[in-house]
Amino acid sequence: MSKKVTIYDIAKKLNVTAATVSRALNDNPKISDSTKKLVLETAEKMNYRQNRLAIALKSGRSNNIGVIVPRINTNFFGSVIRGIEEELNASGYQVIICQTHNDEEKEAENVETLLNSQVDAIFMSTSSRNTITFEKILKKKIPLIFFDRKKTMDNVSSVTIDDFAGGYIATKHLIDQGCKKIAHISTGDLNIEIFRERFAGYKQALYDNDLPFSEDYVLFTKSNIEDGREAVKKLFSLKNKPDAIFSASDFVALGAIQELQAMKLKVPQDVAVIGFSNEPFTNFLELSISTIDQFPLEMGRMTAKVFLEQIDSSEVEKIQKKVVLEPKLIIRKSSNRGK
Amino acid sequence: MSKKVTIYDIAKKLNVTAATVSRALNDNPKISDSTKKLVLETAEKMNYRQNRLAIALKSGRSNNIGVIVPRINTNFFGSVIRGIEEELNASGYQVIICQTHNDEEKEAENVETLLNSQVDAIFMSTSSRNTITFEKILKKKIPLIFFDRKKTMDNVSSVTIDDFAGGYIATKHLIDQGCKKIAHISTGDLNIEIFRERFAGYKQALYDNDLPFSEDYVLFTKSNIEDGREAVKKLFSLKNKPDAIFSASDFVALGAIQELQAMKLKVPQDVAVIGFSNEPFTNFLELSISTIDQFPLEMGRMTAKVFLEQIDSSEVEKIQKKVVLEPKLIIRKSSNRGK
Repeated sequence: MSKKVTIYDIAKKLNVTAATVSRALNDNPKISDSTKKLVLETAEKMNYRQNRLAIALKSGRSNNIGVIVPRINTNFFGSVIRGIEEELNASGYQVIICQTHNDEEKEAENVETLLNSQVDAIFMSTSSRNTITFEKILKKKIPLIFFDRKKTMDNVSSVTIDDFAGGYIATKHLIDQGCKKIAHISTGDLNIEIFRERFAGYKQALYDNDLPFSEDYVLFTKSNIEDGREAVKKLFSLKNKPDAIFSASDFVALGAIQELQAMKLKVPQDVAVIGFSNEPFTNFLELSISTIDQFPLEMGRMTAKVFLEQIDSSEVEKIQKKVVLEPKLIIRKSSNRGK
Repeated sequence: MSKKVTIYDIAKKLNVTAATVSRALNDNPKISDSTKKLVLETAEKMNYRQNRLAIALKSGRSNNIGVIVPRINTNFFGSVIRGIEEELNASGYQVIICQTHNDEEKEAENVETLLNSQVDAIFMSTSSRNTITFEKILKKKIPLIFFDRKKTMDNVSSVTIDDFAGGYIATKHLIDQGCKKIAHISTGDLNIEIFRERFAGYKQALYDNDLPFSEDYVLFTKSNIEDGREAVKKLFSLKNKPDAIFSASDFVALGAIQELQAMKLKVPQDVAVIGFSNEPFTNFLELSISTIDQFPLEMGRMTAKVFLEQIDSSEVEKIQKKVVLEPKLIIRKSSNRGK
């Protein structure tokens, strides 16, 4: 497939800004008629998304895309959104964002808000247990695409990472370092697929390596530093103490390490720790934290691409793509016993 | 002034969720007529914002508020937005967010996007040099409120911190620790008021304490860790090397410290460092970073309150509030020489 022509390509060709191209294509009164004519002719010559443009013009839609995430102020979601913006802005779309704070009711309100704002599509990383809200979106013929935290539904595309594999390679790495009593601190709610999958990957890695699974070694917390500290207090009040921790969150991993150090336990020698997400702070700490990279920028770009392909096709509802990205193990000081 | 009644108060009184109250007040078909009646009667009895509701009903607006920030994935802007949401959600408003990546054209596009989405107001932390975009908002009679990064304009309220005082107390603290050759790494563009003010506070503190000001000691960078490293390389290639750094960004302060340590200089003994913003990582590093707290949650709440007061008043355009919060010095290891 040849690379799609973007407004940046047209802008470069004409030596004007991308914003000017976008405005010209959207018939903005700020732009002179001669510029509009030039841009439209060039766009046609360069074979710029005629399909999408035609659809947008016919439907009279907004060219705005709504994005819903649990929280905006993590590197992970920030980077996914940046990826979405990069890809969509180049095609003349604007992005508006809402956050749910992991609250199902708030998520339903966000969907209402975005539908009222006449968005052309909703991309979302969901915290909901049921699918009522999503069916409402689909009924309005608004494309819905999940990223990261998805629900399995007909006619809905999704872009995720293989969280099972993430849980598996994190746990396998700890086993390779000689750990035999590996605890798992899971975040949030097992109703959310990604956490259920990471947990399942952890269990499978134990099973494949003949290590016993113990309920005592699995804790469920929120995703804060303080919760990591509390979890370690609980785990190390057990008679049979763990020698490693796989945390489904980098923030919880950090809290766990702080508490282990306060207890005068050595990381990674006494207890090896690995987190999940590759938040930037994991790398600039004195004791850097091993983690699983989820390629959020790639995830965002891919989500946008899946949407653009759907829109370009004339059979919007029939296309359904499930893109699954591979996670990557990043070994740092907190788990590296040099084995 | 007695505390305003919120939908949470009504919800508590009736033992229903706040979402139910919000939906009932907005005549949502999901809610039964009997519940609607009960909620409306209770709201009236409790004297719930009759004015605002009346205005909203009359104008047929969206109850959505648009928030524009340079970037979403910092603790500072994340917390401001959380404060805005807390205050506005309790009054039945929803928040949608756009980011500009410090790009003036992108900011203008975001404004278009939000205006097209029929928002009732725009709150923004601006990266623009001119006021054309803002005049467009005001012409549409949409309230505009600045927070943190403002432009001084008639008829526009703002909520900021005293950045001059922030720059002053950071520099004064370094002087109190015995530093005499204090460098300043400023972020972004002096066209942005906050950075100009921090810089002015730095100069004033030097002046008040009979320390000379040197152009060589002032550098302008982006707000990344890598830029902090580069800035230190430049500063320490000078013949007369500084003994302290006041950085207008925590991220730059972190990069600066990493580079100083790589150069085998001791922090704070050889070089004392202070940042700005109190990003959470500054506190959980082995060598914790001194900084200036800007009370972002408070700033967000205050911004929302200023808007709600405007809306409650019948003379929207005449009210103009300039709220200035006081910043707070937080002394940690990176600058504490025990003096």
